[in-house]
Amino acid sequence: MKFSSSLLENAVLEFSRLPGIGKKTALRLVLHLLKQDIPQVEKFSQAISDLRKGIQFCSVCFNISDEAVCGICNDSTRRNSTICVVENIRDVMAIEATQQYSGLYHVLGGLISPLDGIGPADLNIDPLLNRLQENRVEEIILALSPTLEGDTTTYFICKKLNEFPLKVTTISRGVAFGGELEYADEMTLARSIMNRLPVETLVQHQSMP
Amino acid sequence: MKFSSSLLENAVLEFSRLPGIGKKTALRLVLHLLKQDIPQVEKFSQAISDLRKGIQFCSVCFNISDEAVCGICNDSTRRNSTICVVENIRDVMAIEATQQYSGLYHVLGGLISPLDGIGPADLNIDPLLNRLQENRVEEIILALSPTLEGDTTTYFICKKLNEFPLKVTTISRGVAFGGELEYADEMTLARSIMNRLPVETLVQHQSMP
Repeated sequence: MKFSSSLLENAVLEFSRLPGIGKKTALRLVLHLLKQDIPQVEKFSQAISDLRKGIQFCSVCFNISDEAVCGICNDSTRRNSTICVVENIRDVMAIEATQQYSGLYHVLGGLISPLDGIGPADLNIDPLLNRLQENRVEEIILALSPTLEGDTTTYFICKKLNEFPLKVTTISRGVAFGGELEYADEMTLARSIMNRLPVETLVQHQSMP
Repeated sequence: MKFSSSLLENAVLEFSRLPGIGKKTALRLVLHLLKQDIPQVEKFSQAISDLRKGIQFCSVCFNISDEAVCGICNDSTRRNSTICVVENIRDVMAIEATQQYSGLYHVLGGLISPLDGIGPADLNIDPLLNRLQENRVEEIILALSPTLEGDTTTYFICKKLNEFPLKVTTISRGVAFGGELEYADEMTLARSIMNRLPVETLVQHQSMP
């Protein structure tokens, strides 16, 4: 693709670095921005810059937050004896949207995936264990996507949790195997939170012939 | 969708204003940016801001340019007796990519579309007529998408060109009817530039039973 302007070329290049955006889509987006007023485009550019510079992660649960401790962790009406462990903040938003869960969260920041070079040390697993030592937690819900990486991470965390006197559950497998948690519809996700099962049941299913 | 951070919410809102980008895709893009280094995100934000503030349109052909007159109009090796009329700069880029055309361009900035409230006065048609008065042009190639709007614009410009002693051609209809010019493959587009036909042939085809 040959560009008649280096400003244009540069903007298209930056857009095409985003996941799922190729050169043609990038050009389409950039030409759309060119048709907007300058203040509108400045707002867009500023929002991105502010986001990256100003964003913080909750020091307790690693959810994205504008402050040191996020709104969910700070909410005294929520059950702080239950922690729902999720992969990323999209999953927090998906579960919050079901309005079926009133406990706290813990965002791992990824899943164990040896192929991608992501090991347990790259995730927020140690901070989770620290939280359990410092607080009286009765139940951990492992709400990870039912994929190979999700199940690996579930097993790994399960083993680590053995030493704590708490109930470990996993969301019920209403979500189809191989699917991504965030794309589940709200009803399915809400039901799988309500019907959560002891983690042993997952092991039984997996070991069936 | 409920956000735990207003910075995040704002960035997602701005991204979801782009065409073809919904809230979920916007969130995915924003979370991707969050994983990048601050300088990389600043580069992205700056590229967009610079683009909108710094962009110029060529005063001759209305192509996007970093200077007052674009590189194509300034290129003395190109045949300045031929002008190819296109809808937008994506079409200029598509035709340039075929490497089969060495004349100049004229970017209309749209097509006549009464449904969208776009009339001839909204397009760069008068500047095209001025160009013809000021320069010795031998041929005008009307390279507009073979859609209803494209054909309407072709006919309108054709009528305006009657008073000038020049050859008016249109790219050959290798491009399927109803298709968009920019998505044609390079071979088809190159052949349709080479096999351009007098505009009368289009009228003949259209009036056949």
